[in-house]
Amino acid sequence: MKKKELRTFDLNQPFNPSDIKGLRWEELDLLSEEIRKNIIASCAKNGGHLSSSLGATDLTVAIHHYFDLPKDKVIFDVGHQSYAHKILSGRSLENLRKSDGVSGFQKRSESEYDPYEAGHSSTSISAAMGLALHRDLNKEQYEVIAVIGDSSLANGVAFEGLNNLANFDHKIIIIINDNNRSISESRGLLHRYFEKFRLSKGYLKSKSRYQRFLKKTFLTRWFYHLTSWIKRQFKKLLLRKNFFTEMGLYFISNVDGHDIKQLEKAFNYAKNAPSSVVVHVTTQKGHGYKYAEEDYVGNWHGVGPFDIETGKPLKERNPYYLSWSQIYAQLLKDRLKVDERMVLINPATMVGSCVDDLLEKYPDRVFDVGISEEHGAVFAAAVGLNKDIHAYYNIYSTFLQRSYDEISHDVARLDSDVTFLIDRAGLPGEDGETHAGIYDVAYLLSIPNIAICMANTMEEAIDLFNFSTIYPHPLAIRYPKDIVEKCGNHEPREVKLGEWKIEVDDGDTAIISYGPVIKHLVEEMPGYTIVNAMFIRPIDVDCLKSLFNKKQIILYDIYGTKEGFCSYVLNYLIELGYQGDIKTLAVPNTFIKHGNVLDQVKDLGITFDDLRKLI
Amino acid sequence: MKKKELRTFDLNQPFNPSDIKGLRWEELDLLSEEIRKNIIASCAKNGGHLSSSLGATDLTVAIHHYFDLPKDKVIFDVGHQSYAHKILSGRSLENLRKSDGVSGFQKRSESEYDPYEAGHSSTSISAAMGLALHRDLNKEQYEVIAVIGDSSLANGVAFEGLNNLANFDHKIIIIINDNNRSISESRGLLHRYFEKFRLSKGYLKSKSRYQRFLKKTFLTRWFYHLTSWIKRQFKKLLLRKNFFTEMGLYFISNVDGHDIKQLEKAFNYAKNAPSSVVVHVTTQKGHGYKYAEEDYVGNWHGVGPFDIETGKPLKERNPYYLSWSQIYAQLLKDRLKVDERMVLINPATMVGSCVDDLLEKYPDRVFDVGISEEHGAVFAAAVGLNKDIHAYYNIYSTFLQRSYDEISHDVARLDSDVTFLIDRAGLPGEDGETHAGIYDVAYLLSIPNIAICMANTMEEAIDLFNFSTIYPHPLAIRYPKDIVEKCGNHEPREVKLGEWKIEVDDGDTAIISYGPVIKHLVEEMPGYTIVNAMFIRPIDVDCLKSLFNKKQIILYDIYGTKEGFCSYVLNYLIELGYQGDIKTLAVPNTFIKHGNVLDQVKDLGITFDDLRKLI
Repeated sequence: MKKKELRTFDLNQPFNPSDIKGLRWEELDLLSEEIRKNIIASCAKNGGHLSSSLGATDLTVAIHHYFDLPKDKVIFDVGHQSYAHKILSGRSLENLRKSDGVSGFQKRSESEYDPYEAGHSSTSISAAMGLALHRDLNKEQYEVIAVIGDSSLANGVAFEGLNNLANFDHKIIIIINDNNRSISESRGLLHRYFEKFRLSKGYLKSKSRYQRFLKKTFLTRWFYHLTSWIKRQFKKLLLRKNFFTEMGLYFISNVDGHDIKQLEKAFNYAKNAPSSVVVHVTTQKGHGYKYAEEDYVGNWHGVGPFDIETGKPLKERNPYYLSWSQIYAQLLKDRLKVDERMVLINPATMVGSCVDDLLEKYPDRVFDVGISEEHGAVFAAAVGLNKDIHAYYNIYSTFLQRSYDEISHDVARLDSDVTFLIDRAGLPGEDGETHAGIYDVAYLLSIPNIAICMANTMEEAIDLFNFSTIYPHPLAIRYPKDIVEKCGNHEPREVKLGEWKIEVDDGDTAIISYGPVIKHLVEEMPGYTIVNAMFIRPIDVDCLKSLFNKKQIILYDIYGTKEGFCSYVLNYLIELGYQGDIKTLAVPNTFIKHGNVLDQVKDLGITFDDLRKLI
Repeated sequence: MKKKELRTFDLNQPFNPSDIKGLRWEELDLLSEEIRKNIIASCAKNGGHLSSSLGATDLTVAIHHYFDLPKDKVIFDVGHQSYAHKILSGRSLENLRKSDGVSGFQKRSESEYDPYEAGHSSTSISAAMGLALHRDLNKEQYEVIAVIGDSSLANGVAFEGLNNLANFDHKIIIIINDNNRSISESRGLLHRYFEKFRLSKGYLKSKSRYQRFLKKTFLTRWFYHLTSWIKRQFKKLLLRKNFFTEMGLYFISNVDGHDIKQLEKAFNYAKNAPSSVVVHVTTQKGHGYKYAEEDYVGNWHGVGPFDIETGKPLKERNPYYLSWSQIYAQLLKDRLKVDERMVLINPATMVGSCVDDLLEKYPDRVFDVGISEEHGAVFAAAVGLNKDIHAYYNIYSTFLQRSYDEISHDVARLDSDVTFLIDRAGLPGEDGETHAGIYDVAYLLSIPNIAICMANTMEEAIDLFNFSTIYPHPLAIRYPKDIVEKCGNHEPREVKLGEWKIEVDDGDTAIISYGPVIKHLVEEMPGYTIVNAMFIRPIDVDCLKSLFNKKQIILYDIYGTKEGFCSYVLNYLIELGYQGDIKTLAVPNTFIKHGNVLDQVKDLGITFDDLRKLI
């Protein structure tokens, strides 16, 4: 009998989701291979979260082959590792993260294969529990599966979910995708916990024992109706006693996340188990692309367009420009060197904020706390409490909101010496809804006692950073995900708390704004008075009053919603009795779809043209 | 030789902190007894957190006797169990929680014995780590001790702290005060985990083995310089393998929290251990006061003034009034009965919000998620996602801010069918800084897509609740910690989204406000137009425009900061081109010291007299 020819797929065409069902193991492996190639090509063209998606490809193929999607619901934690899932559910990565292409995360509006969606980490367990309750109240029958990385699991929300799962009678399946490093190196207890699994002498032995067991279960489905006595025996026999079994969950460990057959056997056990199951799968981040495989720092976590052969970025760096992240990273580095009473804390975005090299250099004073934004904020508050040590908390705007309570309850209330360096403030660009940095001014203004500022130029950044080193109270310095012209030798200038600058005094209309847009306003809006509100809070009341002879005052904000800067200054204008015409133009308070930042500015109606129309 | 007479203390006089040092075991027990009496008497007079403080009294006496306070730093998680600590550090509970008395939590400004302070749970581990780093960077020598309850430990922040502790080279001591129930019944994995300890057959055996060991160590201090090999052996011998030892922490379990001698032996071991230690102490909540000891529901967690003999509340309930919590609890109950597609979620404040009886009645649809505010919000978002099941999240205003990110990222962004019932909105009263419900409007307004409202009367509460049952989007209903007149048979009235009501139309000045203060404005401010902004968002634009013929519009808010309601309406007034005089009066955006609510209103300058002056 001639062996059937292997089926192959051309992923330049949309994949038909049902096609996966009849495939043989070898064909599934080939499909995985093709998907990885497609992911690499798409990311090389558009940028994206490469490493995580490559690592999860085999796992995703196994999920699609074994489970009954979309009836069964699979939630990818964060969602940035769901590229293979997008392909297998019939979506194209052609215009990945562009306004006319798919989002970089799961998205309910994109596909019925996406039952939930995220962007921030560690919500998948709680979300799966909610969907499972929904299923059972509706008396429906399907599986709810959460796929969560080891680093996401180390976050408080995931732990709260797990903790509540112990008393929760609605079954879910949790697949821990353990790649032993997340955005930056994975830290902490859970890391060590899984590490032990990997390294324990019993590893191989248990693995083969586990495989023998699976062969047996393959024959049977009877245990679906086991009595509780049998359940207990069953558990004793098969499951290692650990954190998860302590909480009454079934636990299957050490499944090879690149062995589709082994994965599906584990799924089969999980599906037939009578209550919630944790499947611990080990994968290699960046699997199938050598540069990503060899990256232990996190450079290939999120990438811009690159050359596939060489792994080099396509976009050449303009030597006259730096990113804002680089500028503040350099300021941090220079300061850490000379100031032994400075501590830097960052929650798992060391690479993104260009400070990853500091961890080794100053192990006593630089802390990557992992995806623990809340812990990071309390830790910072306690470090800076006595004001003889200055804590810097370097965090993306969108993740800062995860520590809202601690910013208020610990940092602001205790008036601790903490400076927040808020990276990626402003519109979200390609990451879309879940990653906007436009809300932080409004929510920081809802908290007492935090000064907020943003620099227009690199020179101002240096001055504001210098100010932060001597200001012993909570301070937030924001900066966008963008580049800015390098400055030459800058003679530092002393900044006063709350200082504004009148950059241009011309005409009867004053435009008050802040941040790097000021430079462009000065260049492109002649005939207007341009005021640089370097401090968003406190404001420069004297400067504001000096504008009261103008017929019109415009409050203009492209880095935050109207509820932030504009509302704050508006209150002063009314209270101080300004009699002229007031207009505001700011980012509307909505969730902003992924796409190009410039397009977002246009779509939201906050361009200079819109500004001119308003005047 | 005549036995030395036992020393006793009169706690009507401030205790001299150094007096504890020379005391014998029997004297310490007597001191504990006296402290408990003093706590009971103070709470009976002023109200307070009785049960937790009684349960932790022996533990606190042992800490003060063994450790070198205030050089050693002890952080009580939350801080509501620190009454004995206050007494022992020389403070009087005479005016507990009154503006001229001590706060109900630890307070840095009160005493050098309070190195940190809280009010919200689960921050103590992260804070202790911050203080430990501060100590070591300053090359100082002392212990940093976090005392944390079992339920606080089940929260995400505490877990993030523990997880980071595994890689943290600065020693802290964590004392887990395990009383097997927190505010409401303790739930989840950690609960089960400790339960197992308590019930295991090895309990007594391990206890005596442990005691034998301590006798040995009592003789020696050599192990402070043990090599790592000895450390490992040591650990193997003495410590049970579990969650904590997995993370490389020393763990001492099952210490009787009412046996001062045993406690101090454990402390001695912990102090001499070379790295961070977890001491697991079991206590009885309410210890020493029979009503509190017998309370398994949580009625004695936080109490008002009561009669010590009978345990009955001193303040008689006015039969014509109900608390707002009771009103919404009743509405929830009535609705759960008839609507099988309604789910209620509450994070550990079931008793405070009067819904504790629902847990047993509707186990499939009512969830006490413990102190897991973040999980609770994601869970709610997923339950309500498909809009065929309606999730209610019943939570105190001050704790809602712990799920800020999830309200935005999960509930609002996914437009889930979730109603937030926000209890204790407004000024904080006796709880002070950490418990104010004045920020939620401002921070909810910083998030898109959530409607916000507040009722003036019980009738309106019924109408708004009815509205919530048919409104399929995120909605926040706020209510204060206060009582309100019962209504008779109320004929339900259909509420429109964003509806405002002109309660009185009189004179040239319109006062726009919302909530129960409206009733008083109508009664006590004749000659003004009084507008009831039942919805804070969206606003009633038509109603607002109808006021444009008034010479003056006053925005008045006693339940939130200026950054909330006032700023939001102010933006509309400017945008719509109102030409008259605008004034705003709201709660200043500060942290508000504990005291009587009426005093707070006066101190903050937001009384009707202040309002009249403004006009």
